[in-house]
Amino acid sequence: MTGYRVAVVGATGAVGREVLEILAARRFPTARLRALASPRSAGTRVGDLVVEAVAPAAFDDIDIAIFDTPDDVAETWVPVAAARGALVIDNSAAFRMTPDVPLVIPEVNPAALRRVPRRIIANPNCTVATITVPLAPLHRAAGLRRLIACSYQSVSGAGQAGVTQLWAELRDAVDTGVAPTQARGTAFRQPIAMNVIPAVGSFRGAHTSEEVKMAAELRKMLDAPEVAFGVTCVRVPTLRAHGVAVHAEFSTPLDPAHARALLGAAPGVDVVDDPAAARYPTPLAASGGDPCHVGRIRTDGAGMLAFFAVADNLRKGAALNTVQIAEAVVRDGVLLGARAT
Amino acid sequence: MTGYRVAVVGATGAVGREVLEILAARRFPTARLRALASPRSAGTRVGDLVVEAVAPAAFDDIDIAIFDTPDDVAETWVPVAAARGALVIDNSAAFRMTPDVPLVIPEVNPAALRRVPRRIIANPNCTVATITVPLAPLHRAAGLRRLIACSYQSVSGAGQAGVTQLWAELRDAVDTGVAPTQARGTAFRQPIAMNVIPAVGSFRGAHTSEEVKMAAELRKMLDAPEVAFGVTCVRVPTLRAHGVAVHAEFSTPLDPAHARALLGAAPGVDVVDDPAAARYPTPLAASGGDPCHVGRIRTDGAGMLAFFAVADNLRKGAALNTVQIAEAVVRDGVLLGARAT
Repeated sequence: MTGYRVAVVGATGAVGREVLEILAARRFPTARLRALASPRSAGTRVGDLVVEAVAPAAFDDIDIAIFDTPDDVAETWVPVAAARGALVIDNSAAFRMTPDVPLVIPEVNPAALRRVPRRIIANPNCTVATITVPLAPLHRAAGLRRLIACSYQSVSGAGQAGVTQLWAELRDAVDTGVAPTQARGTAFRQPIAMNVIPAVGSFRGAHTSEEVKMAAELRKMLDAPEVAFGVTCVRVPTLRAHGVAVHAEFSTPLDPAHARALLGAAPGVDVVDDPAAARYPTPLAASGGDPCHVGRIRTDGAGMLAFFAVADNLRKGAALNTVQIAEAVVRDGVLLGARAT
Repeated sequence: MTGYRVAVVGATGAVGREVLEILAARRFPTARLRALASPRSAGTRVGDLVVEAVAPAAFDDIDIAIFDTPDDVAETWVPVAAARGALVIDNSAAFRMTPDVPLVIPEVNPAALRRVPRRIIANPNCTVATITVPLAPLHRAAGLRRLIACSYQSVSGAGQAGVTQLWAELRDAVDTGVAPTQARGTAFRQPIAMNVIPAVGSFRGAHTSEEVKMAAELRKMLDAPEVAFGVTCVRVPTLRAHGVAVHAEFSTPLDPAHARALLGAAPGVDVVDDPAAARYPTPLAASGGDPCHVGRIRTDGAGMLAFFAVADNLRKGAALNTVQIAEAVVRDGVLLGARAT
């Protein structure tokens, strides 16, 4: 069987584990699969795989390396992997805005995969992925001009520490019968159980890193540098899947019926929009699934097209999209053709 | 001692109890206090008071009746109370948009209390109160023109049933170690624990009743019928206090420093805005307090003034504001002057 030699870097993390599961579930053609992580995880197991410490030689004879690591780890190791000949798909923010690195959602801008001079492809931020999938077909039809988005982001976006903190605080709350009074973890400085925190990531002046990423990455993927984009990112006490309320203005007016038709035909989108039957997107319903759920499609009182979108931040926002990029690369054949074993 | 004869209608509900506590805590000059509720609560006690069934004669010799009941109960009993001579402060939505009924936040539009021809004063929706308190001084200075708001509303906004459902689902989640799979209550048709629900109230076509109220009530209180207002209302698993992300555009450009100065001087507003020190408004911090917390004040990427506001929905959004209206009426003296005993 023809297959590719694949390495998953950061294989012991939540997204890394999800990548391994999705590769198997979608029967990605792997000739060999290598799980890499920091030296302290070396020797542990992830499923059937024994974890190896990341090292330059680990990328020899690797066709595709999927990275899910902190930005600083990616900055060090992604160029090493690419120099050793691997095609890198990187889920960190380290290279997303680098001009020679395409930032790709296969349903949105597959053509960007035609030019990968550094052999690095970036995977977008999980929150911006949630809105870019539905906005792309609307933008192509009507020209996105102005956008306000407010997010409802799950704690798993802050990694396992976020999940652990939420559960610890919820156990306390249930035990004591009152809302938490102090943070019980390291992910968030305020309690997140029974609370919302209007700050995701670190601050860049008055904006958060998450807000800065969303605007920059959306503009890059839609090739729409002029879009005016106001965003507020907020952490909420959900485990998984990010919701985003979107209010958007287009160059050509776009009515809800037209938007619904475009979204109904868009790859990667499930329209979940029957308010009378209490059908609208929620994080619990979108968790564990592939598509971006879109509902509450309407013209708002300011004349903008509004909708609510939810996607699983560990899947479409991360692991699933990296595997879909790998699938697109394999289908195309150009970047890897000579190397398939 | 001079005092007023006060009736609280709906005294056994969460907001009604809060009204009684706030009247006592703020030493409102009561000569007599009467707790009214539906006949099935008659004879029970709220604090020191024995609850009486609501009836026409119950409003005889009452100076001020503070109502917190469902809309249909208010529609029936508010006119009865007013006809019997009571000045009514009503927290339902039944009369908020009636032309001859002022809709009042004392910090925002106290002058509206000068004309109360039906002897009914309406208290605004809790979510719109949260943003109207900070928007009022900004509107006066710069002319609000366009507004996008996305809410993060607590379960107590849906009454005690919302609170009960959240706790039941959280206990289940903690017991089983997984997020809820079905609703355990009557307030929300989807689970609310570890979830968010992008629908508050009932649907009026594509909009929810909450979204319709917010736009109409804000325009009435600010006397700004032309404001373009797009809004998404979302329920989140918090117990108390509603958060709202606001992106606003003004006729005269308003920079964050100027906005911060105006908000710092505004009654009823606490500026909580030091991101570097992790200081921003949260529902847990605003719960139980009087002021509206405002932070994350900045110009967004669409050139709009953005901020995040949080206020306790049972206090500024309901009970506190009704008592503040009563205080303003008493201070002014005209509406009640002759009746004080």
